[in-house]
Amino acid sequence: MNTKKKEVISKLERLGRKLLEEIKRGENPHIDIPVRALSNVIFSGQNLQLGEKVAKRYFFHLAHAKKFMQTLLVASFCKQLLEEGIHTSLRDMFYNLKRTLPNSKENTFDEQRESDPIVVDLEVTLDVLREQLHLSADVRGRVVGEVVIEDRGDIIDWSRLGSGGWAIPSNVEDVVFKEVNAEFILVVEKNAAFERLHEDKFWKKHKCILLTTQGQAARGARRLIQRLAQEFNLPVYVFTDSDPYGWYIYSVIKYGSMSLAHISDRLGTPSARFIGLTITDIDKFDLHNWTIKAKEVDIKRAKELLNYEWFQHKEWQRELKLMIQRGIKAELEALSGRGLRFVTETYLPTKIENKDFLP
Amino acid sequence: MNTKKKEVISKLERLGRKLLEEIKRGENPHIDIPVRALSNVIFSGQNLQLGEKVAKRYFFHLAHAKKFMQTLLVASFCKQLLEEGIHTSLRDMFYNLKRTLPNSKENTFDEQRESDPIVVDLEVTLDVLREQLHLSADVRGRVVGEVVIEDRGDIIDWSRLGSGGWAIPSNVEDVVFKEVNAEFILVVEKNAAFERLHEDKFWKKHKCILLTTQGQAARGARRLIQRLAQEFNLPVYVFTDSDPYGWYIYSVIKYGSMSLAHISDRLGTPSARFIGLTITDIDKFDLHNWTIKAKEVDIKRAKELLNYEWFQHKEWQRELKLMIQRGIKAELEALSGRGLRFVTETYLPTKIENKDFLP
Repeated sequence: MNTKKKEVISKLERLGRKLLEEIKRGENPHIDIPVRALSNVIFSGQNLQLGEKVAKRYFFHLAHAKKFMQTLLVASFCKQLLEEGIHTSLRDMFYNLKRTLPNSKENTFDEQRESDPIVVDLEVTLDVLREQLHLSADVRGRVVGEVVIEDRGDIIDWSRLGSGGWAIPSNVEDVVFKEVNAEFILVVEKNAAFERLHEDKFWKKHKCILLTTQGQAARGARRLIQRLAQEFNLPVYVFTDSDPYGWYIYSVIKYGSMSLAHISDRLGTPSARFIGLTITDIDKFDLHNWTIKAKEVDIKRAKELLNYEWFQHKEWQRELKLMIQRGIKAELEALSGRGLRFVTETYLPTKIENKDFLP
Repeated sequence: MNTKKKEVISKLERLGRKLLEEIKRGENPHIDIPVRALSNVIFSGQNLQLGEKVAKRYFFHLAHAKKFMQTLLVASFCKQLLEEGIHTSLRDMFYNLKRTLPNSKENTFDEQRESDPIVVDLEVTLDVLREQLHLSADVRGRVVGEVVIEDRGDIIDWSRLGSGGWAIPSNVEDVVFKEVNAEFILVVEKNAAFERLHEDKFWKKHKCILLTTQGQAARGARRLIQRLAQEFNLPVYVFTDSDPYGWYIYSVIKYGSMSLAHISDRLGTPSARFIGLTITDIDKFDLHNWTIKAKEVDIKRAKELLNYEWFQHKEWQRELKLMIQRGIKAELEALSGRGLRFVTETYLPTKIENKDFLP
C-alpha cells in the first residue's frame, strides 16, 4: 500500500476515533463540515476556494441524526474500498449502502442524491479527493503526445496509440510519468478539433501534449492537466468555442468551479492561458462568414461572466463586451470555413508565435 | 492509397460521369436515392434493412434543384478528403461548404441539418460508410483485452493500457488486427461496470475482450464489435440495464437501427446474445432490494418493443411482459447491492457457464 493511501485511511480512522472519544466522554458526537454554499466561496486571485465557515453535524439532533449516520456509513464504505483495493462509482456505492434498517421501514438511503453530497462532505472534511476515497467520477477526455506513463503496472506511450489516443480514466492519482517530452499542453474543448489536430500530427510538429476534454472537463482530465503543468512546468493553452460556455470551460480548468471550490487547489491550473477562439479572432482571421447569432441565453451568460471576479482582466472584459455588443459567437469548426488545415497550419501557429493569449 | 479507398473514389467518380453523360445526352441529370423512410425499412430476420423503394433527385426540378446542388457539393468535398487523406466531422464539413452563391443572397447551406442528411443520401446511394467518405462520427467507447492492433502505423496492445483502455475512434476501417487472443466479447453499456470489471481483470481471467459503449453504441464501437465478431468468429455477449432503453441498445448492436437501416450489414452483429440484466435475473440473483419503479415512459417503451418484429422471440416477449406486469426495472449497479465483486465473481461467470442468454 502506498503512503498516500495509508494517509487517507488514517484520516478516516482519526475521524472515527474522535467520535469514539466524544462518546466515551459523554459528549454529543459531531463532525465539522466546512460550508459549501456560494456564500462561502472566495476568489483568491489564484483560484476559487472555500472560506472559513464550518457547520457542525451532530449525532443527537433530530435534523442531523440521519445525515450523521449516512456520513459514517459512507466513511466506513470508503475505508473498506481502500483496504480491499477496489474502486467504484457513486451509483454503485449508493446501491451497496442502500438497505432497510432492521425492525423498521427506514432506508439508509432512498435516492442517490442523498449519498452524493455525503461524499463531498467527506472530501471537504478530510481534505482528500473523492478519487483518493476510491470513488470514480465521470470519464471523458483523450490525450496524445510524446509522453510515457506507468498506470496499473502498464507502460503506456501516448505517442503510439493510433487514432484513438489514451482514454483518460477517472482516477489519475497513481499515474507515474516516466518520460515527458513536450513544450506545452494544448487543451481542446471539442473532440472533432482534437481529431483534426491529431491527424495532422500537430503534437509532433509542435512538441506538445494534445488533450481533449470533450466538453466540460471531467475531474480526471482536470487533475491530469494540473499534474502535467505543475510537475513538468509546462504552459497550458486552452482552446474552446468563442462563446460564454467555452470560456467558462476555460475558467474551470484554470480556477476551479464554484461547486467544487474546496478542491480547486488539486484540480485547477492557475497558470493556464486562453489561446482562442476570441471574438477578436473573428476579425483577425477573417471568420465573419462562419459566425452564429448569439441566443438570448448566451448574452445572459456573458453578462454573468462579466461580473465574476475572475473575469475582471481588461482583456476578458473587452471580449465579453464585444460579444454582447455584436451579438455573435463562433465555434471551433468556424476555422474549417477557411480550409480544413487552417487550424493546424495557420491559426494555432500564429497565435502561439505571437503569444496572443488571454489571461 | 489502399484498394478500399480507391474503390470509394471511383464510386464517387462514376456518379459524376453518369451525370455528365446525361447532360451530354440532353437529359435531365438525376441521382437515384433509396428511400430511407420507415415505410421502406424491413426486418430480414438477420437485421434491419432498406427495402427496394428508390427516389429520383433531378437537377431541373424546382423542389430538387437545391438538394441536387448540395449532394454534388458534398460528393466533391468527400472526394477531396479522400484524395488528400484528411478526415473531418459533419460540423466541419458544414462550415467548409457553407458559402453565399455569387451574385445572390442564397447560401449553399444555411444549417447543418441540411448537410447531415445529404451525407446519409450518399452513403445509401454509393453503398459506402460515412467513415469511408472520411467523415467522422461521434466518438464514445473504450476497450481492453488481449488484442494487438495496428492503427495509423502504431502497434497498440489493448492489454497494456492501464486503467484507461483504448479510446475507440470514430473510424475503425483501417484498424489491422495483429493478434486476437480471446474467447468472446463482453459489451457493457455503462462505463462504471466496465471499470469495475477492468479493475478485477475480468478480461484476463475469462479470456475476453471487454468493451464499453458508454450508452447507445457509437458507430465506431458498433463497427469494431462487428469486425471482431466476424473476422475472429467470436461470440458477443451484451450486458445492459434491465430496462427497455438498455434492451434497445442491445438490439441496435445486434440488428442495426431504423434510422441507419441501410448500413445494418456493416454495423450490426446478428450473432450477438444478451447476457443480462433480465427481469428474471432479479429473482435468480435476489436483486429485489435494488430494483426501481418503472416510469410511465418505460412501460410505454416496453410496449413498443413488444411489437417490434425483432423482439418476437418468446424469451423477449416473456421478459417484456414481466417488466410491464411488475412495473419495475433494474440498473447494472443493482448487482453492487450484493457486493462490489458480485458481478465479476458470481453473476457473469454463472450466466456464461449456464449459457443463460437471450436471443
